[in-house]
Amino acid sequence: MLASRSSDSHRTVVRLANGATFGGTELAICAGPCSVESEAQIAATAEAVARAGGNVLRGGAFKPRTSPYAFQGLGPEGLTLLEAAARANGLAILTEVLDPRDVETVAARADMLQIGARNMQNFALLREVGVARKPVLLKRGFAATVDEWLMAAEYLLLEGNPHVVLCERGIRSFDPATRNVLDLTVVPLLRARTHLPVIVDPSHGTGVAALVAPMTLAAVAAGADGVLIEVHPEPERAASDGAQSLTPAAFDALVARLAPLAEAVGRTLPVARARV
Amino acid sequence: MLASRSSDSHRTVVRLANGATFGGTELAICAGPCSVESEAQIAATAEAVARAGGNVLRGGAFKPRTSPYAFQGLGPEGLTLLEAAARANGLAILTEVLDPRDVETVAARADMLQIGARNMQNFALLREVGVARKPVLLKRGFAATVDEWLMAAEYLLLEGNPHVVLCERGIRSFDPATRNVLDLTVVPLLRARTHLPVIVDPSHGTGVAALVAPMTLAAVAAGADGVLIEVHPEPERAASDGAQSLTPAAFDALVARLAPLAEAVGRTLPVARARV
Amino acid sequence: MLASRSSDSHRTVVRLANGATFGGTELAICAGPCSVESEAQIAATAEAVARAGGNVLRGGAFKPRTSPYAFQGLGPEGLTLLEAAARANGLAILTEVLDPRDVETVAARADMLQIGARNMQNFALLREVGVARKPVLLKRGFAATVDEWLMAAEYLLLEGNPHVVLCERGIRSFDPATRNVLDLTVVPLLRARTHLPVIVDPSHGTGVAALVAPMTLAAVAAGADGVLIEVHPEPERAASDGAQSLTPAAFDALVARLAPLAEAVGRTLPVARARV
Amino acid sequence: MLASRSSDSHRTVVRLANGATFGGTELAICAGPCSVESEAQIAATAEAVARAGGNVLRGGAFKPRTSPYAFQGLGPEGLTLLEAAARANGLAILTEVLDPRDVETVAARADMLQIGARNMQNFALLREVGVARKPVLLKRGFAATVDEWLMAAEYLLLEGNPHVVLCERGIRSFDPATRNVLDLTVVPLLRARTHLPVIVDPSHGTGVAALVAPMTLAAVAAGADGVLIEVHPEPERAASDGAQSLTPAAFDALVARLAPLAEAVGRTLPVARARV
Repeated sequence: MLASRSSDSHRTVVRLANGATFGGTELAICAGPCSVESEAQIAATAEAVARAGGNVLRGGAFKPRTSPYAFQGLGPEGLTLLEAAARANGLAILTEVLDPRDVETVAARADMLQIGARNMQNFALLREVGVARKPVLLKRGFAATVDEWLMAAEYLLLEGNPHVVLCERGIRSFDPATRNVLDLTVVPLLRARTHLPVIVDPSHGTGVAALVAPMTLAAVAAGADGVLIEVHPEPERAASDGAQSLTPAAFDALVARLAPLAEAVGRTLPVARARV
Repeated sequence: MLASRSSDSHRTVVRLANGATFGGTELAICAGPCSVESEAQIAATAEAVARAGGNVLRGGAFKPRTSPYAFQGLGPEGLTLLEAAARANGLAILTEVLDPRDVETVAARADMLQIGARNMQNFALLREVGVARKPVLLKRGFAATVDEWLMAAEYLLLEGNPHVVLCERGIRSFDPATRNVLDLTVVPLLRARTHLPVIVDPSHGTGVAALVAPMTLAAVAAGADGVLIEVHPEPERAASDGAQSLTPAAFDALVARLAPLAEAVGRTLPVARARV
Repeated sequence: MLASRSSDSHRTVVRLANGATFGGTELAICAGPCSVESEAQIAATAEAVARAGGNVLRGGAFKPRTSPYAFQGLGPEGLTLLEAAARANGLAILTEVLDPRDVETVAARADMLQIGARNMQNFALLREVGVARKPVLLKRGFAATVDEWLMAAEYLLLEGNPHVVLCERGIRSFDPATRNVLDLTVVPLLRARTHLPVIVDPSHGTGVAALVAPMTLAAVAAGADGVLIEVHPEPERAASDGAQSLTPAAFDALVARLAPLAEAVGRTLPVARARV
Repeated sequence: MLASRSSDSHRTVVRLANGATFGGTELAICAGPCSVESEAQIAATAEAVARAGGNVLRGGAFKPRTSPYAFQGLGPEGLTLLEAAARANGLAILTEVLDPRDVETVAARADMLQIGARNMQNFALLREVGVARKPVLLKRGFAATVDEWLMAAEYLLLEGNPHVVLCERGIRSFDPATRNVLDLTVVPLLRARTHLPVIVDPSHGTGVAALVAPMTLAAVAAGADGVLIEVHPEPERAASDGAQSLTPAAFDALVARLAPLAEAVGRTLPVARARV
């Protein structure tokens, strides 16, 4: 298996254009809205993410929605807005691609392609993204075993794309108290089984804004190489996922709390934050 | 919601070219191998399925496989073999499509397109199959709620394809004793909520050949409009899913056991069987 | 393992005082309210159950309730009411015991002791019920594997109690559409692994009255040796589990629908029904 | 609800005889073998636990075992050995009670009673332990919702026992890669909903010794008030749970790693460790 770790020191570091890294000592702090909604919204978010010390801007232009009647994202226009906001703030761009026919278009604008949980075993999409050779964030399917997840990564690696980062985002379970169950144990488990970096999405993983900060700390303590956090300037007005989005102020406070914890486990925050 | 039932008598009947129906009094008996492997294999299976009373031949040409190193199906050649075998035996053709770019090709050969469990929320694929307006079998994702499943059907209906059949194929759970947990309760539940037909796949639903016959009977007793059963002339040599495949003899015995039960719940077997 | 089946013909038949059997050709039809609430309620239910063709009266006197503030059952007085109602109608008595210290008291009044899902691994209780040697209905824990369930039965058998019947009552899963997922596949699975009879509780298994009838038919089609159904003269006024309880009329209609299906799979209804 | 939190500052601190606290700034470090096996084993473990900085000795004398043929614990003799080992090392004693009839005996020897996952809804046991008014560790059932868990605590509180500590130990899920899924999100979730302390058991929660250290760090980062860790002098010879037990050396290394992390989140290790 290409995804398997051959030795303790065998570790892949994925590096984006703006210097953000996944898998080294420095953590990747990816943040932004679930959906790109407007120029004002994404610009304000990007500015807040950068100021707080984030180094990757996430935002959905093509949205996978359970209902065909729900907001489906701004599409190409959303990509344009996302790109402008990210470039203006020195952030790398992470955005989801849903359709193998869109990979080329999205790859031309984004620094990192996200394959969402619902598409973890969309093999046509995996192959196309593998060919594109852009850094890729592969989210765990919400009922995928670790073995299946690594096999999905193998599809990407086998097409020649070595820039694969895994993202735990919660699995489905029986308790409605949280949206998903964030399975942090996979962080050390994957570290023992693969050389690929692993990050954690505590926003989807919990579905509750108040739980995002403690689970971010827990993720880094468990050994995660970064986090993916939903931030929205006005969560209560978000077109999607408002209940789990942090305000810019809450995100800033979270990064501040993260700093000493990261240090305690031998990790550093992105340089931008260090500069602040 | 287009999928919602407006009254007790509001029921969709999906009819295939050979007269097979889903949603009427007559049951649909879909059977065949997991993968089309060779001309001899699919020809022998088709003949056995028809003789036993089945009316739809299933067989995978494009296979979604967890591992990129596993057999991926014969592709277009598999479709050709499948078509020949089905036509020679008066069976309709049901086969899976994985990639939105393949929909047109597959739709030109098949009578019914299958959207597999892993692709239940592959919205690009759903939209393309919706546009194709061929009868479609939408399998439940292995951790999909009934609401999500109906919303996936809604994507198909909204594109103008009214020929949608739902297929329960087991959900993921904690007990390794079976491959999945076959959730038969969704059969009456869906009957109350949607006008769309519902069939059951006891082969994937259990993963164990010896459990397929009793669960087929249970599915029809619960009100299923048909079943989808894996049959292989030599299960122990199958390229995929051998452990859950029935031999032609076992399939024949199953249909024989099904006959009195179907009658007890007011259903009939396909005419072909009646003829036998 | 004492619970293991040594041959195809190795099957235990558990017989109650009134002639009801579990594991033979004749099905056991156990029905009654979740809780014994009053003399009028249990008398009316018992009369309805007997008239419809049931042969075992279920009713809780000691109730395991999630909340300490919920109705906890009438206790010993409930047992007295249950006994009178059952005897007046020729029904056997099935009731739950929660505490090892109550086993002797309950065993003196009941024909069959129920060990509930929450207590499937209450080993002190299992041992005490094993010693009592009364017929026992062992419900599956709502997240118990088949292996764990058989091991729980083994505790009973090992104490010398051979009169053990297993009862599937649904497992916990991710979809809030039903209270539990009724795992009917365990019926043929257990039939292959153990000589002990297996019945099904579609009331707890679904949590929805409208789903009880189709899942009863499905259970018997799958090979169940009986069913356990909640019946209440006024479900909307029930102290517990009203949403999943059948009215006497609905129960009567269900048994009528069950008759031809049972015949189709080679089973018979209790003689009382046959008499009607 | 007695378990509900009335204000931000409403927090219960449970204090044991040796000064160990749950719910204050100082963490509780509970460690020891799954089962007490011999005087030498428990004495060596206790000494190692104390030296590494633990303050509570856990060890099972009455063991709930899936199989009646598995080692069931040493019973009262095990309690005697446990007590001697704990007292000799200044540790508090935590041990499980399984049977309401044993509560008085166990409470006379232990500083804290454990109610195991299988007994979380053993209401007879909960009531008896409530009456005993000893500190109690209430483990989450392996498929219990947070609401059900808090209701189980309510049974204890309602009998007059205010010394209740909750313990997350993993829930059951679909991936065999780990024994359970450690649901750390409940730590901040419970902190918002109840005044009761919450600790985490990463040994049962993962089932794999190599995963215990990172998940201990993660638990404390998430806000846990302590941890419960299996330590055995010779894990490969343990009568139960060897695969998830740490050696004394590994436990010592873990506590050393925990120190800076605890400080980073404003918590302290037990004084004994500080002294070292």
